[in-house]
Amino acid sequence: MTLHFVGLGLNSEGISLEGLRRLEEADAAFVEFYTNLEMDLSGVEERTGAEIEELPRAEVEREMLPVEAAESGDAVFLVPGDPFAATTHQELRREAEERDLEVSVSHAGSVLTAVGETGLDLYRFGRTVTLPSHGCPPSVVNMIAENDSVGLHTMVLLDPGLGIGEAAEMLRQEIDNSRCVACSRLGTDQSSTEVADLSEVEGGGSGPHCLVLMGDTTDKEEEYIG
Amino acid sequence: MTLHFVGLGLNSEGISLEGLRRLEEADAAFVEFYTNLEMDLSGVEERTGAEIEELPRAEVEREMLPVEAAESGDAVFLVPGDPFAATTHQELRREAEERDLEVSVSHAGSVLTAVGETGLDLYRFGRTVTLPSHGCPPSVVNMIAENDSVGLHTMVLLDPGLGIGEAAEMLRQEIDNSRCVACSRLGTDQSSTEVADLSEVEGGGSGPHCLVLMGDTTDKEEEYIG
Repeated sequence: MTLHFVGLGLNSEGISLEGLRRLEEADAAFVEFYTNLEMDLSGVEERTGAEIEELPRAEVEREMLPVEAAESGDAVFLVPGDPFAATTHQELRREAEERDLEVSVSHAGSVLTAVGETGLDLYRFGRTVTLPSHGCPPSVVNMIAENDSVGLHTMVLLDPGLGIGEAAEMLRQEIDNSRCVACSRLGTDQSSTEVADLSEVEGGGSGPHCLVLMGDTTDKEEEYIG
Repeated sequence: MTLHFVGLGLNSEGISLEGLRRLEEADAAFVEFYTNLEMDLSGVEERTGAEIEELPRAEVEREMLPVEAAESGDAVFLVPGDPFAATTHQELRREAEERDLEVSVSHAGSVLTAVGETGLDLYRFGRTVTLPSHGCPPSVVNMIAENDSVGLHTMVLLDPGLGIGEAAEMLRQEIDNSRCVACSRLGTDQSSTEVADLSEVEGGGSGPHCLVLMGDTTDKEEEYIG
């Protein structure tokens, strides 16, 4: 029996052909929307004949329902973006492997590479950080400073529920270099990017959002983001 | 008229539903395989009715054929992985925008996030580097040292034509910390990862390959890669 991890990418048509095939063949299918990336999967269900059960994160983490389901048939676990960006999913895989289940992965678009849409060079990004909703901890400030000290950009992902204006204000209080690109709905038809100072980032519009703190830029990058 | 950038992901079924739809609707379709990621697109052609023309890199860079085609109809430019990881494609987009053409992007899986399959935490990677086939330049050595100085992993992409054994040997001569994960065919059914010292990396098997130079690891990471 196999547990198939299938990435949903960044919009309701972001799943790959491989992922669709695995859904068609599966005995059970689950999805989890922990990030603020909610998707309408009715089109995918219609196309594949799969019934997709939405799980709260607690059931994924504690009860490992997708692993349970794979004990008695092929199960698909759908994940927004690309499946192994998040630690939770690594644990699920580990558990499946410990139970001698097969595991497969179907990759899909992730915000971590979609950010190339901004015109910034993906190879000039340092370490990615996540900003918690309760405030900016010293570890995040340090990681940003490390990237900044060697001129690299920092991708700042936001905890679910954290607005982009609020995030920008939290960062502005902690760091000096405040030039950023505020991104909304990357990978969708309504994708937008705004080059601004942290103090000027607008809070409006629906997410998902992310913020890129800019390090040194090349001439090419300046052309593209200009 | 629109130039659609469509990611092909990491295998012949890696294209998204959105990408397929754009191919179905397009007046012209092109693909470029500069990386060592050659794909069989006959299934995609059959499914969408599109005829996909393969372009050598020179025609993409100098003659900008996909942009030309988008002047008189909707054109799709297919790119292995996720489209905006590579600078060439940014230039193509820039050119299209300067000619007042619409641009769209359909994202897909990339080796930059698929490397999460190794069990290494994507948020513990520093800057990505590319190893040229003619030898390891000081700039690459410096970037690896920067990542290493703050305990981060380095993703090393290989220039087309550079074998993994050869790449490991080039790196071994330049850097001290030599624990690595050698990856083959990430994102395909034949995906494999091997934790080894640089001096022990085997040269066999077909690509695409990449090498991850390991920084400090967490207990969780050690469990997964073990």
